[in-house]
Amino acid sequence: MTYILRIQAPDEKALIYKITSLLQNFNITKNNEFVDFEQGLFFFRAQFTGENSIDGLREQLLEVLPPNSEVSIEPKHSPKLILLCTKENHCLGDILLRRESNELDVQILAVIGNHDTLRPLVERFGIPFFTITHEGCTREEHEQKLLDCIAHIGQTELLVLAKYMRILSPDFVAHFRHRILNIHHSLLPAFVGANPYKQAYNRGAKIIGATAHFVTDVLDDGPIIAQDIIKIDHNYTIKDMQQAGHDIEKIVLARALKLVCEQRVFVYQNKTIIF
Amino acid sequence: MTYILRIQAPDEKALIYKITSLLQNFNITKNNEFVDFEQGLFFFRAQFTGENSIDGLREQLLEVLPPNSEVSIEPKHSPKLILLCTKENHCLGDILLRRESNELDVQILAVIGNHDTLRPLVERFGIPFFTITHEGCTREEHEQKLLDCIAHIGQTELLVLAKYMRILSPDFVAHFRHRILNIHHSLLPAFVGANPYKQAYNRGAKIIGATAHFVTDVLDDGPIIAQDIIKIDHNYTIKDMQQAGHDIEKIVLARALKLVCEQRVFVYQNKTIIF
Amino acid sequence: MTYILRIQAPDEKALIYKITSLLQNFNITKNNEFVDFEQGLFFFRAQFTGENSIDGLREQLLEVLPPNSEVSIEPKHSPKLILLCTKENHCLGDILLRRESNELDVQILAVIGNHDTLRPLVERFGIPFFTITHEGCTREEHEQKLLDCIAHIGQTELLVLAKYMRILSPDFVAHFRHRILNIHHSLLPAFVGANPYKQAYNRGAKIIGATAHFVTDVLDDGPIIAQDIIKIDHNYTIKDMQQAGHDIEKIVLARALKLVCEQRVFVYQNKTIIF
Amino acid sequence: MTYILRIQAPDEKALIYKITSLLQNFNITKNNEFVDFEQGLFFFRAQFTGENSIDGLREQLLEVLPPNSEVSIEPKHSPKLILLCTKENHCLGDILLRRESNELDVQILAVIGNHDTLRPLVERFGIPFFTITHEGCTREEHEQKLLDCIAHIGQTELLVLAKYMRILSPDFVAHFRHRILNIHHSLLPAFVGANPYKQAYNRGAKIIGATAHFVTDVLDDGPIIAQDIIKIDHNYTIKDMQQAGHDIEKIVLARALKLVCEQRVFVYQNKTIIF
Repeated sequence: MTYILRIQAPDEKALIYKITSLLQNFNITKNNEFVDFEQGLFFFRAQFTGENSIDGLREQLLEVLPPNSEVSIEPKHSPKLILLCTKENHCLGDILLRRESNELDVQILAVIGNHDTLRPLVERFGIPFFTITHEGCTREEHEQKLLDCIAHIGQTELLVLAKYMRILSPDFVAHFRHRILNIHHSLLPAFVGANPYKQAYNRGAKIIGATAHFVTDVLDDGPIIAQDIIKIDHNYTIKDMQQAGHDIEKIVLARALKLVCEQRVFVYQNKTIIF
Repeated sequence: MTYILRIQAPDEKALIYKITSLLQNFNITKNNEFVDFEQGLFFFRAQFTGENSIDGLREQLLEVLPPNSEVSIEPKHSPKLILLCTKENHCLGDILLRRESNELDVQILAVIGNHDTLRPLVERFGIPFFTITHEGCTREEHEQKLLDCIAHIGQTELLVLAKYMRILSPDFVAHFRHRILNIHHSLLPAFVGANPYKQAYNRGAKIIGATAHFVTDVLDDGPIIAQDIIKIDHNYTIKDMQQAGHDIEKIVLARALKLVCEQRVFVYQNKTIIF
Repeated sequence: MTYILRIQAPDEKALIYKITSLLQNFNITKNNEFVDFEQGLFFFRAQFTGENSIDGLREQLLEVLPPNSEVSIEPKHSPKLILLCTKENHCLGDILLRRESNELDVQILAVIGNHDTLRPLVERFGIPFFTITHEGCTREEHEQKLLDCIAHIGQTELLVLAKYMRILSPDFVAHFRHRILNIHHSLLPAFVGANPYKQAYNRGAKIIGATAHFVTDVLDDGPIIAQDIIKIDHNYTIKDMQQAGHDIEKIVLARALKLVCEQRVFVYQNKTIIF
Repeated sequence: MTYILRIQAPDEKALIYKITSLLQNFNITKNNEFVDFEQGLFFFRAQFTGENSIDGLREQLLEVLPPNSEVSIEPKHSPKLILLCTKENHCLGDILLRRESNELDVQILAVIGNHDTLRPLVERFGIPFFTITHEGCTREEHEQKLLDCIAHIGQTELLVLAKYMRILSPDFVAHFRHRILNIHHSLLPAFVGANPYKQAYNRGAKIIGATAHFVTDVLDDGPIIAQDIIKIDHNYTIKDMQQAGHDIEKIVLARALKLVCEQRVFVYQNKTIIF
């Protein structure tokens, strides 16, 4: 059995000693720690294996750790997720292919689109597709339908916005705190909002980027998980940028998704620590 | 003799034919063109050699080109420039070294600092250093002293801000339209203004960058010439970012300076075309 | 109607003038040239539109160009291709998705696998899949079966080896000179041959790469079309490298394929010029 | 006082617990570990501060660690080094500038050149320069003169070949095992030996690189510390590659030097682990 232990604690001396003293009966195969000295915060992640029971381990850890520490221990598993999409196939298709080849160890429960465009692609991979159009209803109504659909699909750990071109309200986001992943087609915080490639074109940027982040209340402002760029020049039209950008969008989203699924991402102060 | 021909013209059919028909007696060793179809603008740069006189060539070109075309023909030469600096040596020192090894074919007339810190470095390279402190005087007074000093030094083609940590007023900039080069330590338009690394740290950026641009009236808003990035992670303190950033700052500034000196950069609509 | 003109010629003065003089009745929307001064060779590609007939244009061009020039003029079109694969889905799937979204303007006639593994994926996209196993036959016999299958499928312009894990003999390659595209999972010429990631692991490389190239008689030695890299560190196992490498393999292959399909690639002296 | 603890040990359970149990009286500000499961090797580096004495700590650690463990504890300090150069100023000058701005915390004892070219540059920075020409003497004689000069300069921890264009014999290298740093202007193992840019040009590479590595008996085969690349295209002549390459050569060498000086680099099996 493989477990993942995650700790966030106020920093103090000898934390690693105290933690590892309680893990002596297990085999730690990977561990990472980070201290933010400015904030006095300690972060720790360990992957460990062993036949012994982990019953009581969390409580033992909380006992030796400073007050206000957070500890989680979970068996390594394949997370359940729901993908949201609109019309573009590159991010969605890429995740479907990675799932199929086991490169990405996740369970895709369903895909929800606000258009029907990608239904054939998704159904070909044997995954249920739900169309929830935003037409003819208010944002509140649309988001309620989304929530109903998600509830109907069943317990999900993550929502992945695979080029879902709608802005989600704070009310909706509140249901899935740090559990909605988005890909934005710029190197945030540059070019927030609509049409980032057009913005980059107008600004004469020589580099364009993509950013995978958790969704928060503020548009394109959530904790950044992964970013990448490509170099461009004056020959690129907005359409060229879009096409070239697809390549980093899908790679960056997949990279971030993998990190989140492997429980490597800690969020604090609107930033991420990635082990 | 090597000449550089630069043309900006309203686009129309057969421009290249018309231009090259007038260059038949020369040997074109390199030529580049670009059409911005949206704006209907044609840009052309050719490097050519030959023993024939270029007398009248500019007029002949203007005759066959559409109205409102701009044409310049100059012998290839080593441009004269003045560097401005504050306290950090990495961009300035890098340019001095490139000058010394002939990697950068320029004449450095002088260096002006608002602090005296880098005087020893500069004088070691046999280049005059002028200290023009901003202390005890208004911005206007300080900039007037700068202008006087520049006039005293003599005819310069370019001002290069090699980590010059003062903002120049529109009045000052107006004296050197598209002739002041700056390096900003972020991937513009992200993190405009003061302390971009601190801004990047606070935003939890996974990539930081540097941007070389022409200085205009609006802070950090001028036409971008060159950009580059480095990837960072949560382990980077602001100080680590600064140190790592130095490496791209100096490379990007030097790259942009070389492009400008070789007359490869066209500016239009607050953007650059680089041949 | 859009045409693509490609010229390779011994270099001499005024070639562009001569070429563009014959294109005055067309609208050149893009043109590129390159001179290899060492070899005295001139390369030219233009994309032009127009209602006039191109009858005789090639002959006219050959008349004004130096002896031994090569000229081709073709209407822009969507090339026909056959993909070859083995078991890995990332390159193949990526091309299928790009085809489906029209990002890649090609006609995929069929996919041939030496294993049956990827048949379901391919057939889901409505594309014929042929399994031609290499088991129980000599290399010659296997390649003859491949040739028969390709002939049966019909006229193809390109073969794309999308992680096809068999080495093709010079005899086979001779049928498709500069028409077989391969992706090799290293930054050639580093790590030629089998198991490049294992080689990179053993050598302690800090960067791994992928190379798309035309296949020639010599293994992994053909003209390079596109390359890209990712940075790694000591934490990467060979398996980690393989997974991370997939991302650049598929991007680099797709990029090269697009360039070839748009007729932007010239081959000479085992190198490429890319316009 | 800040100390750096480095451990290489056969892997077994609970090593971190055992190590940190002995460090409870110190404040660990940074620690890293890595296990090579294939080889069964454990690597550990910690930076710690404290007022307590470290007397006996090494012995205590060796007692709890498995047999054949290697432990070193050293106060953090500014290492002494000698630079070797030939005629190119970019790597050497870059290190001199970084030293001057305290970006690189080292003591440069002297620079030795096999040509006199860079003497003025070095002496301007107040650093002794020794010319040891290789002309008129055998390799053995030349290397003996080098060794004599190095002995004369005094105790050095590192030799840094800052574009020193001579190959050092195994006999010479044996005096400085894993203490000679070299920068090679290719992405090793591609383009070993002389003229890597010419090799890259002839091969039609689309990417060129630089590699900083420890020097061993076999040419360009030592453990790689850092690598970086730049993208090129058919427009690059060999001279263009050389110039562009300078930018990554100096950055990569400086990065590797900093890592080594901060004792972050472990060498084993001709590879490096970098913490």
